[in-house]
Amino acid sequence: MTAFSETCARARAAARALAIVPRAEKDAALLAAADALVAGAARIADANAKDVASARARGTKDALVDRLVLDAPRVAAVAKSLREIAAEDDPVGRVIEDRERPNGLRVRRVTVPLGVIGMIYEARPNVTAEAAALCFKSGNAVILRGGSDAIRTNEAIAELVRAALPARLRDAVQLAVAGSAEDGTPRTPSAASRDSVLEMIRAEGAIDLVIPRGGEALIRFVTENARVPVVQHYKGVCHLYVDAGADADEAARIAVDAKLSRPGVCNALECLLVDRADATRLLPPIAAALAAGRCELRCDEAARAIVPGATAATEDDWGREFLDRILAVRVVDGLAGALDHVARFGSGHTEAICTRDEAHAARFRAEVDAACVVVNASTRFHDGGELGLGAEIGIATSRLHWRGPMGLESLVTMKWIVDGHGQIRHS
Amino acid sequence: MTAFSETCARARAAARALAIVPRAEKDAALLAAADALVAGAARIADANAKDVASARARGTKDALVDRLVLDAPRVAAVAKSLREIAAEDDPVGRVIEDRERPNGLRVRRVTVPLGVIGMIYEARPNVTAEAAALCFKSGNAVILRGGSDAIRTNEAIAELVRAALPARLRDAVQLAVAGSAEDGTPRTPSAASRDSVLEMIRAEGAIDLVIPRGGEALIRFVTENARVPVVQHYKGVCHLYVDAGADADEAARIAVDAKLSRPGVCNALECLLVDRADATRLLPPIAAALAAGRCELRCDEAARAIVPGATAATEDDWGREFLDRILAVRVVDGLAGALDHVARFGSGHTEAICTRDEAHAARFRAEVDAACVVVNASTRFHDGGELGLGAEIGIATSRLHWRGPMGLESLVTMKWIVDGHGQIRHS
Repeated sequence: MTAFSETCARARAAARALAIVPRAEKDAALLAAADALVAGAARIADANAKDVASARARGTKDALVDRLVLDAPRVAAVAKSLREIAAEDDPVGRVIEDRERPNGLRVRRVTVPLGVIGMIYEARPNVTAEAAALCFKSGNAVILRGGSDAIRTNEAIAELVRAALPARLRDAVQLAVAGSAEDGTPRTPSAASRDSVLEMIRAEGAIDLVIPRGGEALIRFVTENARVPVVQHYKGVCHLYVDAGADADEAARIAVDAKLSRPGVCNALECLLVDRADATRLLPPIAAALAAGRCELRCDEAARAIVPGATAATEDDWGREFLDRILAVRVVDGLAGALDHVARFGSGHTEAICTRDEAHAARFRAEVDAACVVVNASTRFHDGGELGLGAEIGIATSRLHWRGPMGLESLVTMKWIVDGHGQIRHS
Repeated sequence: MTAFSETCARARAAARALAIVPRAEKDAALLAAADALVAGAARIADANAKDVASARARGTKDALVDRLVLDAPRVAAVAKSLREIAAEDDPVGRVIEDRERPNGLRVRRVTVPLGVIGMIYEARPNVTAEAAALCFKSGNAVILRGGSDAIRTNEAIAELVRAALPARLRDAVQLAVAGSAEDGTPRTPSAASRDSVLEMIRAEGAIDLVIPRGGEALIRFVTENARVPVVQHYKGVCHLYVDAGADADEAARIAVDAKLSRPGVCNALECLLVDRADATRLLPPIAAALAAGRCELRCDEAARAIVPGATAATEDDWGREFLDRILAVRVVDGLAGALDHVARFGSGHTEAICTRDEAHAARFRAEVDAACVVVNASTRFHDGGELGLGAEIGIATSRLHWRGPMGLESLVTMKWIVDGHGQIRHS
């Protein structure tokens, strides 16, 4: 047995035990884990300081180093989200359906855990605790494969969380250690992480679901090589279409929030589409508001005619996830033109319309194929917390199993239960 | 563009149109298709006679040839099931959730079609019409890749069904022709079918879901090579555990129905487990009833001590799908022993218990991990029609997305719809 297959075998045994643990015991364990993280904040900070120092020594950019930092206030926030997960309803054992057949059979469908989940993620070490808590509450064992940048922090968190769990359930939370060179120093992420990702995504039968969260290259690598089911968290190429007759101030406010409140996230706006019929009225105030927020606009010819001095967009700018203070802008022929552009260039994440025409809103809702369709609000609302789900493990862009913010409800499957009193099919 | 990528592109365009077609138009098209099949029964029979003659000439076994036959009564049955599908509720546009957030956003989750489905199946040509109807009603385009044995019959059916659909929706039903040699005669299934299966299961972005239905080798090939999501229809290694104190007559009746009413299907019984504490009372009448039905028993030592003259089971007989009048029989140490055996050898399809002890039934329901758990009834009830679903496209043994009988409800995904009046996240 390899180290990884032993990890999987222990996870399977723990999952079998955890699947039938009552809610009260799961919640108590989560509250204990939250307390343990707060009590162990100094230990986490020590480990984190080493990870941060290594990252700085490797010349990692400040923005990435910031994502790596887990100081006492951030640990407190993680502990709070563990307590919130404990307070949420148990997603296991929910009766989806309960009915009796004419032959007297009682047929029920009930929710049950998925089994063993493999979680692949990058820098942020808070994911270690939060993903563990979501999987645990939903009755699943999880094997966490975080980025090598955060390895010491992740180990400290995992040890604290595991120690807070009842012994027989401890292996429901395990770290898959990213490959390291023989002298113990982490290898370059490229080779080591490929190997450790590969062993996880090829573990048919041992892992029931892989959730990859990270850049486009990671998701593509997982999709091309996986033999276990994957729920993808793919890029967000989000559009906002501003319809003729829209409130220009409202459109500008929504565009600024969607693009600039946090440009580096997947529900941020990447492309603005404006109806040709009303573009000369709508575009100037929207462009001015974005420019005031230091946003570069990359405009097509028609938009540049209205916004003088804007950068010219190239073909590559359509369908592009800038993750920066850059926005592609295009003038389109009404709603139909916007729908065509979104169908061609959207990534199926979040698509928004700003309109005062309810018929247009209805057509946009019906015809756009995306995890989330937004009418007259910011794309940034496509988020578990904002949509009222509680904690989320990510935002799925897959079509199978789940789509959109993945909370506890998304981490279960179902079982059919048929109760009889001697019925047979052919007498 | 290859022929297959053109097929996919046409399917995508048709899927986009079909996604927003109202129920009445879909149902009318399905009724027209049912009529067209009945009217074209002679044409189907001609094509089918050629397929049957080819199969006989190749020395195909009678049982397989029988599955290939599609005579007028069978065509009438297919037409009936199309009419039943038309009568079922539309699975598209169902509101799963509808609530308002404190900031006034209205958040809904609604069901939408999956998109383009690839269906891979073997001999039975009735699947061509029934899978097409289920996908069509659920708003999905389908590319049907049937077995080369039934190629002429499948073509006749697909042509009749397509001609009954409105022109703009016609490409929602297409056949992916299994590879053929240049002279037009079908190649040996092995090479040709591998190629045509491969192009389907690697069509990321073009196909949203592949449903393979067939033997273990096909399912394994698909799992190992797929880059698109797959809902598996894996083998059924179904067990019946007879608990101490069970009604021996009832247990015998259930065992006979489960094993012998149709031994070649996935919900048929493959292994009988009997509680050691009561085996001398329970086993003889059960064994006698099975023997009367010409069933070979392959018994462990303890069972052979009670059923003299039975064949000795080998290690290979545990976890084996016989699909024949053969049953493995094992004496186990009570419920715990049965649960261990099922956890180790079951395939997660259907597991049954025969008991008079409600605490044991409850533990079996909770701890067995299978798509369907049956208490005091035959495993053969794990079937869409028997469980009250209407038509089914198969029985999923996957854990993701759907588990158990796949009716219309399983062929959709969802979309989040967020309606606002200018809300932004960070003001």
